[in-house]
Amino acid sequence: MKIISIDPGYERVGIAILEKNDRGKEELIYSDCFKTSSKIPLTERLFLIGQEIDKLIKEYAPKALAIETLFFTTNQKTVMGVSEARGVIMYQALFNKIPVFEYSPLQIKIATTGYGKSDKKQVISMVNKLIKINKDIKYDDEYDAIATGLTHLASNKKYDILKQN
Amino acid sequence: MKIISIDPGYERVGIAILEKNDRGKEELIYSDCFKTSSKIPLTERLFLIGQEIDKLIKEYAPKALAIETLFFTTNQKTVMGVSEARGVIMYQALFNKIPVFEYSPLQIKIATTGYGKSDKKQVISMVNKLIKINKDIKYDDEYDAIATGLTHLASNKKYDILKQN
Repeated sequence: MKIISIDPGYERVGIAILEKNDRGKEELIYSDCFKTSSKIPLTERLFLIGQEIDKLIKEYAPKALAIETLFFTTNQKTVMGVSEARGVIMYQALFNKIPVFEYSPLQIKIATTGYGKSDKKQVISMVNKLIKINKDIKYDDEYDAIATGLTHLASNKKYDILKQN
Repeated sequence: MKIISIDPGYERVGIAILEKNDRGKEELIYSDCFKTSSKIPLTERLFLIGQEIDKLIKEYAPKALAIETLFFTTNQKTVMGVSEARGVIMYQALFNKIPVFEYSPLQIKIATTGYGKSDKKQVISMVNKLIKINKDIKYDDEYDAIATGLTHLASNKKYDILKQN
């Protein structure tokens, strides 16, 4: 059961590929923080994000894509940009015939720390306990993507493309 | 100079294909209001929208895509869904190697009616005067797409993919 999980954004996209092995243990196969330059138009940045997700799905052949939903923030401009990136990412999943599962920041906190009001530091600390990470991670976005993937693997959702959302 | 222009949404997407002929007159080649069912998941709806835009770009080979930006509305949920659709649509443009040009509702009103505070009825009335429409149009979204296309054709912007936005 291999999945790709995403912390969406247009400046930085956290990406992780996780697998639950035969003994039911989660393994991290790949993770990255994909960055796009603020010097190029937003449409170009969205395009590069879409191409990266498409490339990784084709390379690793995950069976589902898990993605974090947005906080209802007051910054409308950020909401628009991140939602556009989310649209592009979810499109790539369906284009490659894999279903999309969405998780709220609250669901991810509860799944990883058991507590809905945990802060970023607590989530990162628990992610490090839940899964072996053999690399240095510089950006929180990458941890968030791993946390989203762990949340999905813990949810045991069926991979029926027509029954989600 | 053929273009595709879009009034984005996830419930209804207004789509138009316009061309400025050799005499500098705008012609409507195609228009439609593409609808998706609320009975299927939003991700599926986004996918269908992306596929439709991809199909039309391949069929009509426009040289640019013009799209309306969002009003800063109070309804965050709508903003998210429409932004996701915008992301998918803009991705399709770049995937097909055509540049994206964005226009605000204000710019479109001024370009079509000469007045920034005109209402929907005035925009529709002017669109009917500016371009010949040989069909019945049921949804405003389709008129909005045509208005967006007329705005772009009036702007005379260069089609340099790296210089927009």
